[in-house]
Amino acid sequence: MFKKTLIIVITVFALIGCNNNQNNEQINASQNDVVNPFTTNANGRINSKGIAAVSTNMNFATIEFTRHPVGENDILIEILYAGICHSDIHNINGDWAVPSYPLVVGHEIAGRVVQVGSAVTKFKVGDYAGVGCMVNSCGECVNCLNNQEQFCLNQAVFTYDSVDRFHDNEITQGGYSDNLVVSEKFAILIPSNAQIEKVAPLLCAGVTTYSPIQVMKIKNGDKVGIAGFGGLGHMAVQYAVKLGAEVTVFDITEDKREGASNMGAVKYVNVNNPSDLQNLENTLDYVISTIPARYDLNMYLSMLKRNGEMAVLGLPAFSQMPSINVGELVVANGSRKIFGSLIGGIKETQDMLDYSVANDIYPEVEIINAEPRAVEEAYRNVIGGKVKFRYVIDMKTLN
Amino acid sequence: MFKKTLIIVITVFALIGCNNNQNNEQINASQNDVVNPFTTNANGRINSKGIAAVSTNMNFATIEFTRHPVGENDILIEILYAGICHSDIHNINGDWAVPSYPLVVGHEIAGRVVQVGSAVTKFKVGDYAGVGCMVNSCGECVNCLNNQEQFCLNQAVFTYDSVDRFHDNEITQGGYSDNLVVSEKFAILIPSNAQIEKVAPLLCAGVTTYSPIQVMKIKNGDKVGIAGFGGLGHMAVQYAVKLGAEVTVFDITEDKREGASNMGAVKYVNVNNPSDLQNLENTLDYVISTIPARYDLNMYLSMLKRNGEMAVLGLPAFSQMPSINVGELVVANGSRKIFGSLIGGIKETQDMLDYSVANDIYPEVEIINAEPRAVEEAYRNVIGGKVKFRYVIDMKTLN
Repeated sequence: MFKKTLIIVITVFALIGCNNNQNNEQINASQNDVVNPFTTNANGRINSKGIAAVSTNMNFATIEFTRHPVGENDILIEILYAGICHSDIHNINGDWAVPSYPLVVGHEIAGRVVQVGSAVTKFKVGDYAGVGCMVNSCGECVNCLNNQEQFCLNQAVFTYDSVDRFHDNEITQGGYSDNLVVSEKFAILIPSNAQIEKVAPLLCAGVTTYSPIQVMKIKNGDKVGIAGFGGLGHMAVQYAVKLGAEVTVFDITEDKREGASNMGAVKYVNVNNPSDLQNLENTLDYVISTIPARYDLNMYLSMLKRNGEMAVLGLPAFSQMPSINVGELVVANGSRKIFGSLIGGIKETQDMLDYSVANDIYPEVEIINAEPRAVEEAYRNVIGGKVKFRYVIDMKTLN
Repeated sequence: MFKKTLIIVITVFALIGCNNNQNNEQINASQNDVVNPFTTNANGRINSKGIAAVSTNMNFATIEFTRHPVGENDILIEILYAGICHSDIHNINGDWAVPSYPLVVGHEIAGRVVQVGSAVTKFKVGDYAGVGCMVNSCGECVNCLNNQEQFCLNQAVFTYDSVDRFHDNEITQGGYSDNLVVSEKFAILIPSNAQIEKVAPLLCAGVTTYSPIQVMKIKNGDKVGIAGFGGLGHMAVQYAVKLGAEVTVFDITEDKREGASNMGAVKYVNVNNPSDLQNLENTLDYVISTIPARYDLNMYLSMLKRNGEMAVLGLPAFSQMPSINVGELVVANGSRKIFGSLIGGIKETQDMLDYSVANDIYPEVEIINAEPRAVEEAYRNVIGGKVKFRYVIDMKTLN
């Protein structure tokens, strides 16, 4: 709490005193004619704007704040697009923990590099860069060395509402903003031929689904159930279909039946329709659950063949968290494996992005303006199941 | 209920009317000079005796009953030894379902073949044969064809307290008895050089632990945690040590520390001793839980390295069943797999027995007499954690 207060105080001071202090000497404007539009304050901190949740109940406001200076291994990204992930909503609502208001969320970030630190090798000014759920980790533990930075034994620093021990324990602020400073290790190089307005959701929804599909080694002809046909689910369907899997999509509405078919699913199950649920037991090789609300884990496990595997990706609010007990694992679902999968490592994220762009796999996005009311409306549509797949905020429209 | 009543009525009728009706014409006594000591009633049913739970609260009595006739594919086994499995206790106590009293439990059975049906090819009179938890299944579904009869899509017939649809829906009676009639497909050939008094527990405790160790492909140098050092646990330790794994044993007492070391474990953790629990997170490749009571699934999962696997074998009473939720799977334990494992198929059981005998792997057994009071005392010791590893009933002492 002390640290949070400190950050806010520092931020307010910076906003009052130093908003127009230009400090762009590191820019190499000759590269791609890209100019760094961001100013710094007296401490070298980057002046930033963003759409923040200022209290619970989706109370958004545009705020000004600062980010830490661009270190020698850092890049400064001008954010072009930021995706709206369901976990943003859980976070600002305090469904998992008490958030640090004012909080700029957003961990699906695509933008352009406008400044690079002196030791940066992976990026040059003008490159497109993406950032997902993490901005740093120790880099030395077995999990980091094994390209699973999300499980850093010393704690990964997440993109927002995370204590950044590499920068005076400030609380990180996310992607619903005009810029981001990040270690180049945690930035993903976006291929120049990418459809940039659709890239942002790949950094979370893309890798979160791509990773377990790789881990489970889904292949041509496998029978794969994908539960929840939203932001995560529609990415999982595309990756699985691309690999030649026979995909069955599960959701709770008739409205998505046609969309699932169009995306290559061979079957659509409306879980609220009992006749749809018949004869599904013991039929699937894999199940991927992206459901962000309460559901019946046993029902999905029972659809697996023995020796089949279920990956759980969706994370409901604590109050809606499904569980499974030992008896259900041993007797009802013996020899069926279940595991949770949390985003993916940085190497895997780069692999996912390269693969997605090369294979023309993108989220279906709806672009909205960077206005508090537009974000609020988008959130209400996500909660109400009215979003088609993914909202993306055009951060260039931020005022 | 009707069927259960019918069986009891038939049994009582048989006991009164036909106890001494000899019908041993199928015996080939020349083989190994083994004589079938069992009589049949007027319907060709085998007259049998056993130690039954006649009500809850471990109220045992010696009863007489009959078994179905020896069909052309069946063998009649004179039971020599029957192991006491913790699940016998759960079953007679009604911890999982309401039992059918009087109930002869026991699914760890070792004996000698005293009669074979006309079409039997795998056994001859005089062979040693074992029976585990199952006595039949459809043989035609994908799981049976895949050697996972325990998951028969049409329902396996279990060795006791199970409706036997292949025999007029009678309720099966288990191994705390003098004989058993079983399809040869579900009998395991016991190598003639086996230590026969120690074989019975292999048919349940042995295969239950051998199976997941095979599935997980545990190998030389793997770090394996084995939770619960009782009947199942001490078999798992022996199999894992034999494969060259570095085994850590977990239990709740100091009394088993030396035994674990003697069996080849490199480390023993008394879970009730906080200092024993330090520095265990992220250290194990596999965990095998044999615990039959409430415990903390998350604690054991957290000890796995990422991408590690936990097999759950022990089945506590419903009232003590541990569970895990989606949040714990995704966030705290992402990329750690968990699965339940239920005994093993028939082929796997034969493989296990051949492997165990060839490698001199046996349970540590304490032989008791086939008397109701001795069984009751053994149960109390199992419940109280006073059994060393496995009680085995010498069924030849049954009066």
